[in-house]
Amino acid sequence: MTLKRIESIKEFGGYLNRYTHDSETCHCEMTFSVYLPPQAETNNVPALYWLSGLTCNDDNARIKAGAQRYAAEHGIAIIFPDTSPRGEDVADEAERYDLGKGAGFYVNATQAPWAKHYQMYDYVTKELPPLLENNFPLLPGIKSISGHSMGGHGALICALKNPQSYSSVSAFSPICNPMNGDWGKGCLSAYLGDDTNNWNAYDATALIEAGAKVLDILIDQGTADEFYDEQQLLPENLQAACKKAQQPLTLRMQDGYDHSYHFIASFIGEHIAYHAKALKNKS
Amino acid sequence: MTLKRIESIKEFGGYLNRYTHDSETCHCEMTFSVYLPPQAETNNVPALYWLSGLTCNDDNARIKAGAQRYAAEHGIAIIFPDTSPRGEDVADEAERYDLGKGAGFYVNATQAPWAKHYQMYDYVTKELPPLLENNFPLLPGIKSISGHSMGGHGALICALKNPQSYSSVSAFSPICNPMNGDWGKGCLSAYLGDDTNNWNAYDATALIEAGAKVLDILIDQGTADEFYDEQQLLPENLQAACKKAQQPLTLRMQDGYDHSYHFIASFIGEHIAYHAKALKNKS
Repeated sequence: MTLKRIESIKEFGGYLNRYTHDSETCHCEMTFSVYLPPQAETNNVPALYWLSGLTCNDDNARIKAGAQRYAAEHGIAIIFPDTSPRGEDVADEAERYDLGKGAGFYVNATQAPWAKHYQMYDYVTKELPPLLENNFPLLPGIKSISGHSMGGHGALICALKNPQSYSSVSAFSPICNPMNGDWGKGCLSAYLGDDTNNWNAYDATALIEAGAKVLDILIDQGTADEFYDEQQLLPENLQAACKKAQQPLTLRMQDGYDHSYHFIASFIGEHIAYHAKALKNKS
Repeated sequence: MTLKRIESIKEFGGYLNRYTHDSETCHCEMTFSVYLPPQAETNNVPALYWLSGLTCNDDNARIKAGAQRYAAEHGIAIIFPDTSPRGEDVADEAERYDLGKGAGFYVNATQAPWAKHYQMYDYVTKELPPLLENNFPLLPGIKSISGHSMGGHGALICALKNPQSYSSVSAFSPICNPMNGDWGKGCLSAYLGDDTNNWNAYDATALIEAGAKVLDILIDQGTADEFYDEQQLLPENLQAACKKAQQPLTLRMQDGYDHSYHFIASFIGEHIAYHAKALKNKS
């Protein structure tokens, strides 16, 4: 497995590096970014995986979320994967922003033409962690996960399906119950087929209803978020499932905030402090 | 004078708002953004003007620089003007990123076809301050200025030409001596004509050589900045002029940092703290 570094930018005393590699899981060249805090020059550090939302690649959050400042303070690496497979031979719906490239939805697709490349769940949970731990100064197995919107959904399902693998999980404006929102229905039906029984494995609310459990979940949701109004995100459905299952959940409805990176920037410091605490307990 | 609000985004407890207005100075519709910190809901606050660099508009810095967090901490508004006049009837060199739209260079152009609209020096120093102070909860006349690259040049000349108007000035990777760099020569010759005597009024190094003085100047310059290597920025020329004129200057050569917003994000907190101190002495 060869990583090719295509960019290295100094930031907050550490380095924001960008790599490409041939993904065995997605069967295409993939790009990701890694922020290594200054502490990584002398010690192995824990990692926070950040999963981005629809239309993003690995670059958006590293530019707009303002996370590196806090990662440098706490001595945590941040991993920014892409949101879908890429390349000319990868299936796409070019006229849609919510299906295909930029919209991998962090599932393992089973349906043509998607199944060959759209294996983002395995890519994030199985391929990237050992690849990264073998190539960077990371503490083996000490990782947490967070994300935004579609990536918040991704973070929730990755943690709920692998509770031993992630020290903590948080999300901004996550798609909490994709089976019941238009974005989710569109992607899950395309990638997984029409049998909705197969969707349960990638729906945070359904997973909790089926008994999945993590130590804690932190979610921030803006009340002025247009996609919350559109019923794409459905945090109340997750909240009801958590209540019934006695799954600890801190759902903070943030008054007046929207769906943008300005919202993420406003609270990312609190999320990184939350993960830092959990990661240091494990380190 | 009518301001039209076209966007309002809550961030760090305050509001990032965006406006258009018919500029009397530039004879076209102009767009700017204002970040009002939470303190502005109850009190008038001081303002920091941020001038952006080549290719930017008012949006880049507000997304990428990470300044709003510190503005909220210190209770300072940030004003993000555009970098040039805009619109279909505004002269441009569409194939060039370093002349015309996005490259106003913060001068008052005297040459055709630029002179009609390219009056960015007057726009920033004369039109915007009263417009903003009349429409927002700002402390009248209590303002500082900073910027990046072409905008760092803009901040330096605005302060040096109006030392009583700005409480403090700082810059990231500024074009310190545009008369002697290719970017500067290209814009100054186009906007001001070939007589280089007319360029002195918009060149920070030349202004200091001619006796301009401010209380202090803070500059951060990355050592891995490709445009520093290309001799576009020439901080040493400014440093030599400051030394000769006994103009206080703190020029920090930041090891390994480049020209990007990741560099700005790394040090913007220190710049805003620097301006906050000066602004509070004046308030």
